[in-house]
Amino acid sequence: MGSLAPYQRKHRVAVVGSGNWGTAIAKIIAENAAANTAIFEEKVDMWVFEEKVEIAKDSPHHDPAFTGPQNLTDVINRTHENVKYLPGILLPANLHANPSIEAAVKDATILVFNLPHQFILKTCEQIKGKILPYARGISCIKGVDVNEEGINLFSETIGKTLGIYCGALSGANIANEVAQEKWSETSIAYDPPHLDSKAPTPQRSPSSSQVDLVHFQHRDTSGQFSTVKLQALPSEYPPINHDVLKTLFHRPYFHVRVVNDVAGVSISGALKNIVALAAGWVDGMGWGDNAKAAVMRVGLMEMVRFGDKFFGATIDQRTFTEESAGVADLITSCSGGRNFRCAKHSVERNLPIEEIEKTELNGQKLQGTLTAVEVNNFLKKQGMEDQFPLFTAVHRILEGNMQVAEIPSYIER
Amino acid sequence: MGSLAPYQRKHRVAVVGSGNWGTAIAKIIAENAAANTAIFEEKVDMWVFEEKVEIAKDSPHHDPAFTGPQNLTDVINRTHENVKYLPGILLPANLHANPSIEAAVKDATILVFNLPHQFILKTCEQIKGKILPYARGISCIKGVDVNEEGINLFSETIGKTLGIYCGALSGANIANEVAQEKWSETSIAYDPPHLDSKAPTPQRSPSSSQVDLVHFQHRDTSGQFSTVKLQALPSEYPPINHDVLKTLFHRPYFHVRVVNDVAGVSISGALKNIVALAAGWVDGMGWGDNAKAAVMRVGLMEMVRFGDKFFGATIDQRTFTEESAGVADLITSCSGGRNFRCAKHSVERNLPIEEIEKTELNGQKLQGTLTAVEVNNFLKKQGMEDQFPLFTAVHRILEGNMQVAEIPSYIER
Repeated sequence: MGSLAPYQRKHRVAVVGSGNWGTAIAKIIAENAAANTAIFEEKVDMWVFEEKVEIAKDSPHHDPAFTGPQNLTDVINRTHENVKYLPGILLPANLHANPSIEAAVKDATILVFNLPHQFILKTCEQIKGKILPYARGISCIKGVDVNEEGINLFSETIGKTLGIYCGALSGANIANEVAQEKWSETSIAYDPPHLDSKAPTPQRSPSSSQVDLVHFQHRDTSGQFSTVKLQALPSEYPPINHDVLKTLFHRPYFHVRVVNDVAGVSISGALKNIVALAAGWVDGMGWGDNAKAAVMRVGLMEMVRFGDKFFGATIDQRTFTEESAGVADLITSCSGGRNFRCAKHSVERNLPIEEIEKTELNGQKLQGTLTAVEVNNFLKKQGMEDQFPLFTAVHRILEGNMQVAEIPSYIER
Repeated sequence: MGSLAPYQRKHRVAVVGSGNWGTAIAKIIAENAAANTAIFEEKVDMWVFEEKVEIAKDSPHHDPAFTGPQNLTDVINRTHENVKYLPGILLPANLHANPSIEAAVKDATILVFNLPHQFILKTCEQIKGKILPYARGISCIKGVDVNEEGINLFSETIGKTLGIYCGALSGANIANEVAQEKWSETSIAYDPPHLDSKAPTPQRSPSSSQVDLVHFQHRDTSGQFSTVKLQALPSEYPPINHDVLKTLFHRPYFHVRVVNDVAGVSISGALKNIVALAAGWVDGMGWGDNAKAAVMRVGLMEMVRFGDKFFGATIDQRTFTEESAGVADLITSCSGGRNFRCAKHSVERNLPIEEIEKTELNGQKLQGTLTAVEVNNFLKKQGMEDQFPLFTAVHRILEGNMQVAEIPSYIER
């Protein structure tokens, strides 16, 4: 990255969220920031929702100087381990846990969002206007928000709320395995608005505080071009492009491919859970690997069709069929993911999937059953149930209006 | 299929081969011939390489009137079971086992080839000139013939030897499961030459024996158009098209999609075995489902790339990413296929894969290890090893020149 050396300023990266996956991603980012100091500030801030933790006496982190309940951020910064959410993993020394979200994000040019989706809006409202106006975001939050009216991408919710551009990261990744540096792959989608050639040339002054608002042409998920206002990144910084994002996220054990298709990368992460339920049921029936592969193939086709129908102009069908966020994540989810497992057990034990969910997931909820209902409500409103027979079959089976044994005849055409 | 009623003649179908898969496919064809007598002659001939079999005294097929060694064809025709190669499966009464290949094929308009690939050439030489000159073929023989000079499709070998057009069938299918009517899917590829509009209008007389040779424009696997001579099907027969082939092969438990891409359907069935070896090794290393999915994704991409480079103009990349012969067969082969299992065990037990092959396969040979060498010889000759890092890694590991642990770094780019 020698060609980036001439830039006067470096990117400061902040990670918003510090759960299992948030901390695993923060570890990667801190490793890459330390290894690429011509582009990134070495210190990476990770916002941690402060809470008290107790260090057990038999823990290697027990220290007589620190007894009783302690702040999680203090423990992380002292021991370089997120003892609560990613125990047993040594974090880089340049990763700094920050209990103040405002302090963590205020000077960051790259914001990485990795928190439960129900907290996105509240968190973004909290930092709105308190970030660099030319910052860019990457959302690592899996899935999309589907309701009867349409599909909202979390990256767009973040971008709109904060007035910045936000891309997405999704792939066949399990946080603990990535943290243990077991090899996997992921997809990053990043396609910021292009400078509007018809708008007046933006006035970029050398000091970031004086950068003007500039107009960009932006193609949204409906395929419409619209002009949006975004602040240009000051020219002292290396441009935030696919190469820079790969440098920030790619590791020998975490292979990254960067694409443009934000919608494809995002909706794959939601729709594959519906397919995983069907695969689990079919596997539970004892129909063999070929039947399971058939369900997965049909599911993949419906994912492609869904993208094509509802995100027409911006989607690239290769995201589903060739990228980690698509076919690879689908394969993993249909191999041993929780939606797959619960569906399989529900057939094997002849119990409703809600029963399995209660006994197996320790209070957590299945994503697939929720997404299947949301997607079906949306498809019904569009009058398009017939065009997605597998998604529709999954919903009907969940409702009790169809038997698993009917799947082959229902999707036959 | 009422619209086909006006045709004066029906298609007679013959199946060439009667092993495990041959008999399973013959069962399907006979079921569909019986159900669609407006299009097909009800009686379906299956050529059986004659051999003597003994019926055990405790078999339900034991009959005091027939003791001692009997002809396999007689047993099949009396008991409607291929006791030797597909025991336990009741065959339709309209499926007739014929010990004479010449008699089986001589009046057939549709020839279905399903025999071990090493017998293709000899068998075709034997019936050359003894079939209807306007017959059409479907090859159910998996894989392709790869050597340093190029890749030959079995369907093309058949077609060239017999002077007919031959398509291909391949999918995520296990013969015994299909025979037991466990649900699966398959792909049929069929793209016969189109009538050459520049050639003189062919003279079709009502009697098939007087049909003239007509010229067709044929796009071969290299993408070149060439004019070939084929006999047109007499107009008394329903045309042999995608609909008719679907009617002949599709069952409620065996879903068929018909496409044009013969090369894609054929090479998928060979290349997926290379990927299955890599998936087995990675699984044997205990790297988890995401690493396995990553290997499968990279493998699928290399399959697409291979098709694109060497079958350029005729291939449709969706064959690999959307059809049963492609992604679904890859998934099945990487779930529990023999290449996958032997590779996995070889890592787990730290033994060469040849050792596992000997102890696990009861004298049979792995297809994947052979294909990996053949494909590598071909790629080396083209100077293209670098463009197929996973295929190349598999070959090097088999040769002992690379460790499985090096796969991620070798394919990293």
